[in-house]
Amino acid sequence: MFLTKKITIQTACCFYMLFFSITIFAQQPADFVNPFIGTSNYGATFPGPIAPRGMASISPFNVAGSQNALEKDSQWLSNPYVNENTFLTGFSQVNISGVGCPDLGVILVMPTTGMVETDHLKYGCTYSNEIAKAAYYSVQLDKYNVKGEFTASKRVGVSKFTFPKGQSNVLLNLGLGLTNEEGAMVKIVSSTEIEGMRSVGSFCYNSPEDAYPVYFVAKFSKPANKFGVWKKPSKYKGLEAQWMTYNGKTRMMDNTIKTVVGDSIGTYFSYQFDKEESVEVKIGVSYVSIENARENLEKETGNKSFDAVYKETYNEWNEELSKILVEGGSKDDKTIFYTALYHTLIHPNTLNDVNGEYPEIKRKKIGKTLGTRYTVFSLWDTYRNMHPLTSLVYPKQQSDMIKSMLDMYDENGWLPKWELNSTETFTMVGDPASIVIVDACLKGIQDFDIYKAYYAMLKGADQIENNPLRPGLKDYIEKGYLTTNDRGPVSTTQEYNASDYAISLLAKALGKKEDYKRFTNRSLSYRKLYDKELQLLRPRTANGKWYEPFDPVAGANFQENVGFIEGNAWQYAFMVPHDIVGLKKLMGGDKAFSDQLQKVFDSKQFDMANEPDIAYPYLFNYVKGEEWKAQETVKKLVKEYFQNKPKGLPGNDDTGTMSAWLVYSMIGIYPISPGDPIYAITAPMFHRITIKLDPAYYKKESIVIERQINNDGKIISIELNGKPLNSFFISHEDFVNGKTLKVIQN
Amino acid sequence: MFLTKKITIQTACCFYMLFFSITIFAQQPADFVNPFIGTSNYGATFPGPIAPRGMASISPFNVAGSQNALEKDSQWLSNPYVNENTFLTGFSQVNISGVGCPDLGVILVMPTTGMVETDHLKYGCTYSNEIAKAAYYSVQLDKYNVKGEFTASKRVGVSKFTFPKGQSNVLLNLGLGLTNEEGAMVKIVSSTEIEGMRSVGSFCYNSPEDAYPVYFVAKFSKPANKFGVWKKPSKYKGLEAQWMTYNGKTRMMDNTIKTVVGDSIGTYFSYQFDKEESVEVKIGVSYVSIENARENLEKETGNKSFDAVYKETYNEWNEELSKILVEGGSKDDKTIFYTALYHTLIHPNTLNDVNGEYPEIKRKKIGKTLGTRYTVFSLWDTYRNMHPLTSLVYPKQQSDMIKSMLDMYDENGWLPKWELNSTETFTMVGDPASIVIVDACLKGIQDFDIYKAYYAMLKGADQIENNPLRPGLKDYIEKGYLTTNDRGPVSTTQEYNASDYAISLLAKALGKKEDYKRFTNRSLSYRKLYDKELQLLRPRTANGKWYEPFDPVAGANFQENVGFIEGNAWQYAFMVPHDIVGLKKLMGGDKAFSDQLQKVFDSKQFDMANEPDIAYPYLFNYVKGEEWKAQETVKKLVKEYFQNKPKGLPGNDDTGTMSAWLVYSMIGIYPISPGDPIYAITAPMFHRITIKLDPAYYKKESIVIERQINNDGKIISIELNGKPLNSFFISHEDFVNGKTLKVIQN
Repeated sequence: MFLTKKITIQTACCFYMLFFSITIFAQQPADFVNPFIGTSNYGATFPGPIAPRGMASISPFNVAGSQNALEKDSQWLSNPYVNENTFLTGFSQVNISGVGCPDLGVILVMPTTGMVETDHLKYGCTYSNEIAKAAYYSVQLDKYNVKGEFTASKRVGVSKFTFPKGQSNVLLNLGLGLTNEEGAMVKIVSSTEIEGMRSVGSFCYNSPEDAYPVYFVAKFSKPANKFGVWKKPSKYKGLEAQWMTYNGKTRMMDNTIKTVVGDSIGTYFSYQFDKEESVEVKIGVSYVSIENARENLEKETGNKSFDAVYKETYNEWNEELSKILVEGGSKDDKTIFYTALYHTLIHPNTLNDVNGEYPEIKRKKIGKTLGTRYTVFSLWDTYRNMHPLTSLVYPKQQSDMIKSMLDMYDENGWLPKWELNSTETFTMVGDPASIVIVDACLKGIQDFDIYKAYYAMLKGADQIENNPLRPGLKDYIEKGYLTTNDRGPVSTTQEYNASDYAISLLAKALGKKEDYKRFTNRSLSYRKLYDKELQLLRPRTANGKWYEPFDPVAGANFQENVGFIEGNAWQYAFMVPHDIVGLKKLMGGDKAFSDQLQKVFDSKQFDMANEPDIAYPYLFNYVKGEEWKAQETVKKLVKEYFQNKPKGLPGNDDTGTMSAWLVYSMIGIYPISPGDPIYAITAPMFHRITIKLDPAYYKKESIVIERQINNDGKIISIELNGKPLNSFFISHEDFVNGKTLKVIQN
Repeated sequence: MFLTKKITIQTACCFYMLFFSITIFAQQPADFVNPFIGTSNYGATFPGPIAPRGMASISPFNVAGSQNALEKDSQWLSNPYVNENTFLTGFSQVNISGVGCPDLGVILVMPTTGMVETDHLKYGCTYSNEIAKAAYYSVQLDKYNVKGEFTASKRVGVSKFTFPKGQSNVLLNLGLGLTNEEGAMVKIVSSTEIEGMRSVGSFCYNSPEDAYPVYFVAKFSKPANKFGVWKKPSKYKGLEAQWMTYNGKTRMMDNTIKTVVGDSIGTYFSYQFDKEESVEVKIGVSYVSIENARENLEKETGNKSFDAVYKETYNEWNEELSKILVEGGSKDDKTIFYTALYHTLIHPNTLNDVNGEYPEIKRKKIGKTLGTRYTVFSLWDTYRNMHPLTSLVYPKQQSDMIKSMLDMYDENGWLPKWELNSTETFTMVGDPASIVIVDACLKGIQDFDIYKAYYAMLKGADQIENNPLRPGLKDYIEKGYLTTNDRGPVSTTQEYNASDYAISLLAKALGKKEDYKRFTNRSLSYRKLYDKELQLLRPRTANGKWYEPFDPVAGANFQENVGFIEGNAWQYAFMVPHDIVGLKKLMGGDKAFSDQLQKVFDSKQFDMANEPDIAYPYLFNYVKGEEWKAQETVKKLVKEYFQNKPKGLPGNDDTGTMSAWLVYSMIGIYPISPGDPIYAITAPMFHRITIKLDPAYYKKESIVIERQINNDGKIISIELNGKPLNSFFISHEDFVNGKTLKVIQN
């Protein structure tokens, strides 16, 4: 009897393994993620692991050391990792993805062997055999023959180091970092635990007074044979320096459990191994307190192994990415698509701890949420497509993001502009929060306090004095535009127009007729900056005259210029998506409009790497008969700028904005006028695309976009649920309540 | 009926008040304390409040600012307050009294008015109306018209600021400090509470790796209208500095509860008063943790008012000081006497928190005591008289000090040498812990593990390699002396001799005959350094020859010299108190000895300001018929060097050593040979002195020293319990078991 039983179990086992193997080898959406995409060409993404919208993440840190192609202090460098670089000095535990300013990239863990060396320029080394996947990164450190593997849960980074025989060390460097802020505190709690904090902030060299702490707790799977803290103090000056033989020298403080603070401090945990051995290091982080960091670590990873954490986070990624299933297309197509979708799921990210606590804006107190408090709102970028995408595919997340924005309004008196870990960086211009909220609201995400949101928008739009969101508002309201006395007067006017248009849409929906009229009018004021001769928008001085001399080309490639923020007159000329009909009229009709638009591309003024003009290709849809130009241009741009390689993003990912552009462009629709629930249609790049819809927000389970190709030519017909659509636009309502959107190409 | 009752109560009230008034106005020992004594002439005491052997203390901090006569960075200055200085920049909450190296003097509280100014050179000001008493200090800040009053419990400093109408601020400066260490952390918990830590250490510019944190919690009696943190970051260098408009500038961070770290940080609590108002600030400290600092604050001062805390600590002082009651003498005599006794009750001080926790030596872990863990053992100074005095008057404290020393041995493997807040500073030379322990033990304080103590002493005395207590031990054991290859070879040999003598006494008491013989022999080895021609001790080189050239006068006033530590050949010539008989023989008998001793004084080589020769005056007792010289010299020295004024100490108080010298000298006995329980007798300076004895250690309740004067001349007779003593020495046993020691002068 016994024997029989045993055989049965073995058989079952085999079946299970066979089944398991099949599951493993079938390529899941998460398997197509290539985190190296965007790690070159200033994409500013990082290849290390992160959970969807995770607070913690691990990035190899290879931007310190003159051996590198791009060294962090040699230029305005905003990422902890550059693919071309060769000299690695650790693995940072909190990172921002795809932004244009340096910050975070701190709490650097580094495995070494032999004697403890604390100078990163000395302990850093070259590396090889990098592998990066969703939720996983591994690398071999050449100098030490150490393999590092990394994964992460939402608030905990997990590192696994496999050391050769001999003395091995795990350094925790709290001095080195991508951020320009300095200052840290650390205390070794025991031979398996460290706690501390690191100052970060002054993002984009702004608001240094808002610099803030990130707290952490690190737990080691094996007790150190020896541990300690190092500190390199600042050099003492004056008479007393002559008595200090130790002046400015690094101090090694062995086996101590005291609190140490300083700008340049770190810890070392040393082991003596008589064979190859692995050490796992879990680092929980929190923006509230050390206690919360410890709780985050315990609750999320407790006694879980590296592999268990990896599997959980991999599954999370797979679940999120499976919300859009694509069929057809090459492996590279799928890779750039799912990597882009992955990049849109990094920011905004979770700010609250597992217990719900988070620092309120300005850190005046600790708030508590029952849902998710989101942070990292690069709204000038993301209002254009990232948030609209989130509303469509992840409406619950979008809802929580809006609730987070409204909480910020409660805490701070203003909706966010460029919020980062509960600091308002006031980077960029415009008042884009309104657009994000209206866009989601009009798409049916309405489980938040809409009236509060509405009045919050009105405050930002109407309060003339001391308004941090809309500087220059007095001119804008009185004259209809900002003048050259203000910053980027033309583009900022356009941004305010876009926001006012969104507000007008909500006013209309709420039955606020007066406001509707008022904001509709305000949204068209850009027209006063239209120069008929140039067929471009151009700045006016305070006395209403055109600013002279005016060079429409000046301002490309992020150069400072009088009229525009991060762009030139060409790159902003068409950025009035809510009034393309009006713009066409100004320009003299369809043809003039189309010619001028084409000129942007022909004269190489189109900049794929920045937001103002990224919707341009879709604007051809506004000219009957020229929609093929949109299709052709989008296809060309995707091919040119988005590739399955580190340089495969056109520039800064802008917290997923470039990636969202790609996602939309590959599924064949684009939210052409943010705030307005409408999509422009182009040719999808997969045979079939299934978007799963969240039943809490949408009636249908999913919507399918199908492509029918004859010769990969122009779109000849678009059908919704089998019936001709007769338009290259589709409302969000029609789209999500449809069943199949079929695009037939010649 | 009602009316009658009321009157009765009022009468009772009046009686009570009358009684109370009498109590107040009768001068108690504590009323004679003048904390200004020693605040000039490098006495290095501070005038602010402290409880007996308290961990916390408050000192006005007036050593920062070039307006001052003595500025802390302009020279080797070791005190937070100098009486001649005029520019005050706050009130430090932890301080060391009477030491020769700068440390602590941190956590500076400063009241200001008007706009918040964070630069101490700008907010500092002159002051007036200083009042200093036991447990109380007050001062008027001229610039702000603010009165500051200060008191302290053992672990909590309490400040009371009386502000005029208008904006008032309480600054907490964590950058400025007397210590040369830098680095602090702070977090404002609420509008009435602050928590944080400050790094201190590298005492005497030694052992920077042992720098350590002092944690604190501050509670305010009134919630601030506005609060914040300031930070002056270090200046950023390199390319990025050009984008930092804020580079190196002080940042004001309003109403934030985030953790801030840095070398130059502080907090401000601001108030808007519409009339004169007071704010009380309680600051609890701990060397273990912020939590413990908070518990110390709560348990010791809770809801107590400033006045209640003051009264408690005043009473504690009075109780301690009343252990010796003096009658007769002028007010100045009583003042210098009780102030000296007060100064002997500051260090060693309490290290453990109210819950018993303290950092163990080297801060490898947190220990816990049921008694008191003492710290600040300046043993090279204090073994000579401070500890003997404590054994006599405060034997329970002495017992706990010995237990603390033995705990340090457990923690660190070595008895302490110069222990400071659980760091071993290894300042000065010798192995004085043995002497302290033996002295107490042979005086009957034996409630500790004597055998452990004995073996701890042997380890220090015998372990040749890696012995941090006795460098040069190999030479010492082999040759009998240290050579010019070692530090201060002559004086260090003498110190080892003194320790070995103490060990021999304990060996004898424990019946360890071999050890007794061995250490007795070792204790006499200084004789090999005796130069018959010079009648002085002088250094020998490694090959045994006299070191040439040799200047017996070199080394006075703390100048470095080859043979001696902090002294010259004259100041060390007689520092063999355990072998004066032998020394006399070396010198050629009583007369030669007496002549040579007199020469020290006549040639002005005697240094009252440092320890090696402070017992010299009493050595005349060893020459029959010349005891009057001891009496005369002591009287002269007391008059010359100890006065009721800031300059009233001869130099550094050396954690109470100079003060203990004065206490002994004024009561007419002196522990002439530390370790050996014997006193030399001179003329007491009061009519009657009653020393209360602790019944836990001594049989008698008290011992009385009486003086009978005819013409204030030589002592003509000494009587113990009415019988002639026939000696100018008395054993500790006879003394404490006597009733009255009567000294009759001509």
